[in-house]
Amino acid sequence: MNKLLAESIGVFILTTAIGLSTSPISAGIVLIALIYIGTHLTDAHFNPAVSFSAWICGKIELHEFTEYVSGQVIGAIFGAGFVWWISKMTFAPTPARTTSPFVFIALELLLSFLFILLFLCMMYPAKRRRNPVFGIVIGIGLTGCYLIADPIIGMGLNPGTTGGFILMDYFNNGGSYQYYPVYLLAPCISAIGAAYAHKYLMEFRTDILR
Amino acid sequence: MNKLLAESIGVFILTTAIGLSTSPISAGIVLIALIYIGTHLTDAHFNPAVSFSAWICGKIELHEFTEYVSGQVIGAIFGAGFVWWISKMTFAPTPARTTSPFVFIALELLLSFLFILLFLCMMYPAKRRRNPVFGIVIGIGLTGCYLIADPIIGMGLNPGTTGGFILMDYFNNGGSYQYYPVYLLAPCISAIGAAYAHKYLMEFRTDILR
Amino acid sequence: MNKLLAESIGVFILTTAIGLSTSPISAGIVLIALIYIGTHLTDAHFNPAVSFSAWICGKIELHEFTEYVSGQVIGAIFGAGFVWWISKMTFAPTPARTTSPFVFIALELLLSFLFILLFLCMMYPAKRRRNPVFGIVIGIGLTGCYLIADPIIGMGLNPGTTGGFILMDYFNNGGSYQYYPVYLLAPCISAIGAAYAHKYLMEFRTDILR
Amino acid sequence: MNKLLAESIGVFILTTAIGLSTSPISAGIVLIALIYIGTHLTDAHFNPAVSFSAWICGKIELHEFTEYVSGQVIGAIFGAGFVWWISKMTFAPTPARTTSPFVFIALELLLSFLFILLFLCMMYPAKRRRNPVFGIVIGIGLTGCYLIADPIIGMGLNPGTTGGFILMDYFNNGGSYQYYPVYLLAPCISAIGAAYAHKYLMEFRTDILR
Repeated sequence: MNKLLAESIGVFILTTAIGLSTSPISAGIVLIALIYIGTHLTDAHFNPAVSFSAWICGKIELHEFTEYVSGQVIGAIFGAGFVWWISKMTFAPTPARTTSPFVFIALELLLSFLFILLFLCMMYPAKRRRNPVFGIVIGIGLTGCYLIADPIIGMGLNPGTTGGFILMDYFNNGGSYQYYPVYLLAPCISAIGAAYAHKYLMEFRTDILR
Repeated sequence: MNKLLAESIGVFILTTAIGLSTSPISAGIVLIALIYIGTHLTDAHFNPAVSFSAWICGKIELHEFTEYVSGQVIGAIFGAGFVWWISKMTFAPTPARTTSPFVFIALELLLSFLFILLFLCMMYPAKRRRNPVFGIVIGIGLTGCYLIADPIIGMGLNPGTTGGFILMDYFNNGGSYQYYPVYLLAPCISAIGAAYAHKYLMEFRTDILR
Repeated sequence: MNKLLAESIGVFILTTAIGLSTSPISAGIVLIALIYIGTHLTDAHFNPAVSFSAWICGKIELHEFTEYVSGQVIGAIFGAGFVWWISKMTFAPTPARTTSPFVFIALELLLSFLFILLFLCMMYPAKRRRNPVFGIVIGIGLTGCYLIADPIIGMGLNPGTTGGFILMDYFNNGGSYQYYPVYLLAPCISAIGAAYAHKYLMEFRTDILR
Repeated sequence: MNKLLAESIGVFILTTAIGLSTSPISAGIVLIALIYIGTHLTDAHFNPAVSFSAWICGKIELHEFTEYVSGQVIGAIFGAGFVWWISKMTFAPTPARTTSPFVFIALELLLSFLFILLFLCMMYPAKRRRNPVFGIVIGIGLTGCYLIADPIIGMGLNPGTTGGFILMDYFNNGGSYQYYPVYLLAPCISAIGAAYAHKYLMEFRTDILR
């Protein structure tokens, strides 16, 4: 219940940050802050696809996975609602008009894979000794992925935050829900790939510091 | 007296940086510099709301709290005066015209809570071992909060710096003093919440590095 | 074979990041992510000139060097092709029209030297204890070099990524191939200089932390 | 002689970076790279005012100080000449037209003091254990100071780089030499202040990590 609450508040703040600033830089910085605060209580996933990947890796139990994702869904919906109340606009991610469906799927798969694998490598290193900069690396990794994604496929990579925004957009008669299957499924497929890539990488771990 | 002087000089420089650059990025970077310099002598609060929260947490004594806040008030007034002298303008934070009072209060509460809790988690960790990046994380956390806050509610989050700017604006016949109750009280209320959240998080601290 | 694959995937993602964003900041951030992921398996070179320099330094064997560079070439070609497919444009680095050939060569030599030497100093320190921030320093070093290089000589410094882009540009009837000798040879010459500078510096290493 | 050469090459690259990019961000990033490379051999000052301050603090000997500053002067002149050759322009720092002499002096003193004190605190900590992020903090500190200084008083803070640029500007019949007394003397006066502030702070050093 603590973890559900922690993930819920974290995703609420992350969703608010993305929705109000619509800036990859603010999103990444707020994720850095949330990770360094949140790791006291949970593993600071704040993303259902990351939780899914951590569960496949055996880093969290099934009941924790359920708790994390429930919190994330609640937080994302409240966060997206809060953004709507403040900015009187629904910020729903959509791919650019010139982006073909194949490009949308390919890029969402690739960037989700990169972000989730980076998260796993920094949060669950071999020998259980985290690099002190782990939160900074994950946060600026999100910024980097969003800088590439934003003009082409929108700021996805997180079925939680995108789900919240798209739900609010639907309540507001928007049509962004048609893109949600990709924003939901692509990160989950990448989560499977990232989990196995992480397992594989951990076996080869030989360097000294981390 | 040393601590009063240190907090006073630090807030003077921070206020100068915010007022001259009016940029969230410069404000955050200068805070990073001040934290790594200042922790030699004080806990590098440079913000009355942070000092208030640290006092509730029992991290500083009442007499230190008084000393810190006195220094911060003096530094902020001199800093805001220095900015006025240099730029011939008073930089007073104000919410955007389209921002309703409820949004102003809600967002100032939320972002102050995030920043103060981040400060406490990095500056006063469990087991008394600070992450070496603590100053960088706090500084870019301020940048992130200011990037979100600036276009909607102005660069508040610090009753010291905002107080100095608003006082100079008042001497210059500006009307920004009407917003000071929110810039003063919202961070103080968030400071109480952040102090209890920090206490709660520290009990659950189980990860390895920090 | 693992290492070939790892370098190949890494350069594929780096090339994609450079080509899609055409931004020094995204390029640097993605390199940070790839380094912290990749050091589990290889030394995260993602650049033939860096691999060449590491081989001269004796940090990798000749067969590893061959494996690394093969992977990098494959990754760069697929990455540049992927960028072409997505953006319908070939992003080929070229010097600005006003840049004379001597300036082009001089600056490509100087910036490659700086980047490769920085890479070697952070990745192969004396006493075999890496600074935890090594990946961040290398990545923002790339950003810094690209910020200077981009408006004058284009985003080179890496015969792999530039080779991939220029090959795609050639297939698309572009004329950027005439600049490839400089983008290829200048980093390789700098790699020799950086390798000897690194060897020399490591003998004088006396400071405490790293 | 090694140290003279190291400081000379470092200042050459720093001057080139400032002159070609004219950007506070590139200047700070290149300083980060130079510090992590240079600390193998010297204390990576790359600034006569910093060397002066380190000498007052007793961190370097008089003969080292002479060697450092000689190298810095040579590097700055060659760097500024290299910038002139590449960009066909002399980048000479000058205060903005609206900046009064008193503001120019006051701000150059304040920002030099902040930067030099930050450098000393990170490079020469108590207990001789450097924070691993020392180079990043010094570099982004320079970026922060330059972001504030640039539009008001120009990118000074370093009598070496400014001296080189102003000499080239003088050869090119520019009039920026009239500002050099401030760019030279203000950082040197701040260096004295920063040295004593650093000595004072080191006595009070009580925190755990650094």
